[in-house]
Amino acid sequence: MSKLPHTGTTIFSVMSALAAEHKAINLSQGFPDYDCSDELKEMVNHAMQQGHNQYAPMPGLMQLRTAIAAKIRGLYQQTINPDTDITITPGGTYAIYTAIATFIHPGDEVIIFEPAYDSYIPNVLVNGGVPVLIPLSFPEYRIDWQEVRRKITPRTRMIMINTPHNPTGSILREEDMTELEKLVAEHNLLVLSDEVYEHLVFDGARHLSVLRYPEIYKNSFVVFSFGKVFHNTGWKMGYCVAPEHLTKEYRKVHQYLCFSVNTPMQYGLAEFLETPAHYLELPAFYQQKRDYFLELMNGSRFTPLASQGSYFQLMRYDQISTEGDKEFAIRLTKEFGVAAIPVSAFYHDGKDDRVIRFCFAKKETTLEQAATRLKKI
Amino acid sequence: MSKLPHTGTTIFSVMSALAAEHKAINLSQGFPDYDCSDELKEMVNHAMQQGHNQYAPMPGLMQLRTAIAAKIRGLYQQTINPDTDITITPGGTYAIYTAIATFIHPGDEVIIFEPAYDSYIPNVLVNGGVPVLIPLSFPEYRIDWQEVRRKITPRTRMIMINTPHNPTGSILREEDMTELEKLVAEHNLLVLSDEVYEHLVFDGARHLSVLRYPEIYKNSFVVFSFGKVFHNTGWKMGYCVAPEHLTKEYRKVHQYLCFSVNTPMQYGLAEFLETPAHYLELPAFYQQKRDYFLELMNGSRFTPLASQGSYFQLMRYDQISTEGDKEFAIRLTKEFGVAAIPVSAFYHDGKDDRVIRFCFAKKETTLEQAATRLKKI
Ligand SMILES: CSCCC(=O)C(=O)O
Ligand SMILES: CSCCC(=O)C(=O)O
Repeated sequence: MSKLPHTGTTIFSVMSALAAEHKAINLSQGFPDYDCSDELKEMVNHAMQQGHNQYAPMPGLMQLRTAIAAKIRGLYQQTINPDTDITITPGGTYAIYTAIATFIHPGDEVIIFEPAYDSYIPNVLVNGGVPVLIPLSFPEYRIDWQEVRRKITPRTRMIMINTPHNPTGSILREEDMTELEKLVAEHNLLVLSDEVYEHLVFDGARHLSVLRYPEIYKNSFVVFSFGKVFHNTGWKMGYCVAPEHLTKEYRKVHQYLCFSVNTPMQYGLAEFLETPAHYLELPAFYQQKRDYFLELMNGSRFTPLASQGSYFQLMRYDQISTEGDKEFAIRLTKEFGVAAIPVSAFYHDGKDDRVIRFCFAKKETTLEQAATRLKKI
Repeated sequence: MSKLPHTGTTIFSVMSALAAEHKAINLSQGFPDYDCSDELKEMVNHAMQQGHNQYAPMPGLMQLRTAIAAKIRGLYQQTINPDTDITITPGGTYAIYTAIATFIHPGDEVIIFEPAYDSYIPNVLVNGGVPVLIPLSFPEYRIDWQEVRRKITPRTRMIMINTPHNPTGSILREEDMTELEKLVAEHNLLVLSDEVYEHLVFDGARHLSVLRYPEIYKNSFVVFSFGKVFHNTGWKMGYCVAPEHLTKEYRKVHQYLCFSVNTPMQYGLAEFLETPAHYLELPAFYQQKRDYFLELMNGSRFTPLASQGSYFQLMRYDQISTEGDKEFAIRLTKEFGVAAIPVSAFYHDGKDDRVIRFCFAKKETTLEQAATRLKKI
């Protein structure tokens, strides 16, 4: 018997396959349809040519960790020791899993807010933990901190947060961080903060990284992704930032889980990060995409929910249909040629608020074609 | 409390760091000091240039899986379905961990032979399993199948084998496979077969992959590595072959552990595998290295043990010193400028047969310099 006997195939594989089958425009799985920087590719190629093709150090290439620490200092006013606090991983999903595998023992409770990225719950289950599921408010997708307090027990070990939030595009605010800080102190909780969309925050809002809050950070794993922000999701490169006492344990699992991460890609990314413009330009780049998509969808019968971050836009379709979101998403793909993700897939019980998620990390022409099709409905 | 509170840093990081500190020739951690093929690097670069930089399909690129199935058909006379039986992973270590994470529940016993690659025991422990440790005979490093039978209990769930064997260079023979086949049938055990050195088998011996034995394969995970054989350990690319009913469960964990693996590297490797010479030439290439290293060491006071496979050569040093192998390996690095791995690091209880492991995946000039230093002792 496997540890996930009742688990199906991830919704991202399902919808991308359906999109391919029906030659639909794929706004479902979160990845861009434009390429990453030529300069970055050339940096990786150069590293390969230079012969950097053997094992990187287990925690990651020092140049890359140093560049990350400089970025964190610049953006979040926090001094992180690259030697002891940063571990390079094969993607953000892996970084999240490894934090859970390191610290969650059978019976440990982990607080997860729903809708939740679909790896969180299985990651806890594989490790024998107990997911404690709390719905975000609808349609603002905010945390009810009173409800969180009610759900805390002596077995509560970890709380997972995600800002900017996938799939909803909501972001945590100062008052959330204040509540979190109190909670962590009172109950000595571990925090697993998924910040893979850190640079994709709009309308002048600041990304409130856990790294800005030393009292939270001291109990935290903070997970980032290169693929999500530098348009190369297929490279599977990310990292986990955590204080030394946590990173020390984290690396004990990591060193035996995959040991180290792709060397030439690490060289390339280290060089690319030396130019802060490469990430400083991202909020404007993505806001432009979000705004363009919303403008194009003006006059459609879809109703956008607020998206303050990430590259996702939720839409209600209650003016079009009363179908469940899975049926609607499938029909949209088959009949109208646009694939999206039904948000119920991010709830353990399939809670269905009749909203679907579009990924707007797409070329303008793609967004235009998709909007043309969606407006026909 | 983490799940591995008593675990230290992997011996490979320790010895490589010590080698660097003392500017020693590093024959410790297993990686070549020559580069991988220019042609292969160009294939990867081409894939990047073509824009293959987004998520690969979760189980891996179909071209790559098809090329692997063709290789398996040619080498092991076995027809494997690339759609249902092969999963591409970020390295062999990850592939091993994931098999354990998928099937080992708390309390399940896993048979492991020692000396054992240093990730096996922690992988079982992180998943709450119980390692059942059986020493290989010294100095032939063969399996005592009677002893295995004595150690089987109703909780025995899995047996891990490794051929060619790291660190000893021993290989499994027909009679071992016959015993394994019987055992698996009688006790319905899962088999996890680490075959990352599949192409590195010497003196005309055949690699006895589990894939040759349908009655074993039907209960098996068979793990392979590109890095170990194509001289790019830093790319962290490998794969797991398992029958459909096992792969189905394996992918449920994999899809939420890292989802997918580096896309341009998969394209490059798929193209590279189309030319069977790229792997058919490997046994001779490595045998030449082993033979050259042994020839160079002729007249030293080290005594080589038989190495039939892998790129490792064990040596006794009883004519030089009565020290424990850790002290000896450290002194060798510091005083004589050659780093090796103490084999006691591969035993849970530090069993010390006074042997050290040299990696001979090195340029001829490196082996010559190392031998010159080692012969001075
Ligand atoms: C790992 S595939 C899913 C990509 C993603 O983050 C999403 O679509 O939400
Ligand atoms: C993953 S680092 C260790 C490399 C290796 O397989 C070895 O040296 O045995």
